[in-house]
Amino acid sequence: MEIKAYKKDFDYSYTLGAFPTFELIDAKPGAVIKVYMASNFTDAEKLTDVCRRAGITLEVSDKTISRLSDKENVYVVGIFKKFDAQLDPKRAHLVLDRPSNMGNLGTIIRTSCGFGIYDIAIIGNGADEFNPKTVRASMGSLFRVRISRIESFDDYLKEYGSPQRNIYPFMLDGKEALSPDIKHSEVYSLVFGNEAAGLDPSYAERGVAVKIPQTEFVDSLNLTIAVGIGEYIFTSKMP
Amino acid sequence: MEIKAYKKDFDYSYTLGAFPTFELIDAKPGAVIKVYMASNFTDAEKLTDVCRRAGITLEVSDKTISRLSDKENVYVVGIFKKFDAQLDPKRAHLVLDRPSNMGNLGTIIRTSCGFGIYDIAIIGNGADEFNPKTVRASMGSLFRVRISRIESFDDYLKEYGSPQRNIYPFMLDGKEALSPDIKHSEVYSLVFGNEAAGLDPSYAERGVAVKIPQTEFVDSLNLTIAVGIGEYIFTSKMP
Repeated sequence: MEIKAYKKDFDYSYTLGAFPTFELIDAKPGAVIKVYMASNFTDAEKLTDVCRRAGITLEVSDKTISRLSDKENVYVVGIFKKFDAQLDPKRAHLVLDRPSNMGNLGTIIRTSCGFGIYDIAIIGNGADEFNPKTVRASMGSLFRVRISRIESFDDYLKEYGSPQRNIYPFMLDGKEALSPDIKHSEVYSLVFGNEAAGLDPSYAERGVAVKIPQTEFVDSLNLTIAVGIGEYIFTSKMP
Repeated sequence: MEIKAYKKDFDYSYTLGAFPTFELIDAKPGAVIKVYMASNFTDAEKLTDVCRRAGITLEVSDKTISRLSDKENVYVVGIFKKFDAQLDPKRAHLVLDRPSNMGNLGTIIRTSCGFGIYDIAIIGNGADEFNPKTVRASMGSLFRVRISRIESFDDYLKEYGSPQRNIYPFMLDGKEALSPDIKHSEVYSLVFGNEAAGLDPSYAERGVAVKIPQTEFVDSLNLTIAVGIGEYIFTSKMP
């Protein structure tokens, strides 16, 4: 099997770098196809040991690594089979409607993992969560969460909507100002729109539309920051 | 005067794009040296009008614009004289110790402006707030805030420390977990370290060291997100 530079329709992808590869092996050993290591990787002993214990093939190949990585400073690449997940219907969800930037998506996955929201739905045709750029920005957090791609928000509600689940679309003109004192049920979905366009106005009817108060001097907060603030508040204030 | 591609030791810099240029003219008209516009800029009438009313020279020059911008989609460039500010000693401050990434610095300036913290100290040899990349990431918010570069945190304290001002260094091993219910004085300084290294341990003695609680699965939050959460909480919960 020759490993080619990533394309979206591949059924595999790869980590670039030692840190996310260790995360991959730790969190999803069953998905790993093979690990490549540069001949001058300084932590070869640890990686060899970890791969052996997980029953993973490790090959030294400078050629493969330089072909797959466009940056220097990559010494380890982990090839993995893409996976798909069901979200946990009893847990809090993060819902992203067509996020467009892979770096942002990776950062958001990492943040979500940091706040313990491990179930993420991506609605519509958004950035590819398996692109090596996303994987890199997530710093391997991609392997710790359940991600499901769903065609529309209606389909999401059909599958996961329930009387217990409250929906909070984050919108610039949301009716409720986000408050550090917010009270909410244990099961909820925080919904964020695309970087440029935000959420479609119809989302206001889908739940309690929330805005993060801000001064007149900025158009909107950066998406990754809005998600971070929303997740921090909701996970800090449990019922 | 021929405008050259930016270098750090210049006493001028420039905005790339119409939006930050309008912000520049609106917030800091006295700092504008000249505005350049591409011959195919679609909003020429508005820009001409705004410049005329502010007494600013506007020149059509595709050559200047293509020389200064490395990306397409730049139709307007505003040349401005760098400025330096005293912080307001009675207001909340954001203090950044050697931020290293210009994109992050710009995003942080924009976020701070969005939460109404308009006084920013940059300690030590950090990213250049006037680099066009920082200006672009700030989306023009740079012109709405007071920024002061200060050599060391000791110098900052000498100038702005007071019995009324509480210092909150954000640290991964901070003693106090950030709480949405935090009570604080009106005058405070939120202090954040470098993206990779965080704050030096000595900062723990400088005030109430705060950590943002997070799961074991991430090393740390992205700096811009940590600043966003800290600023949101502190500006939402006034005494």
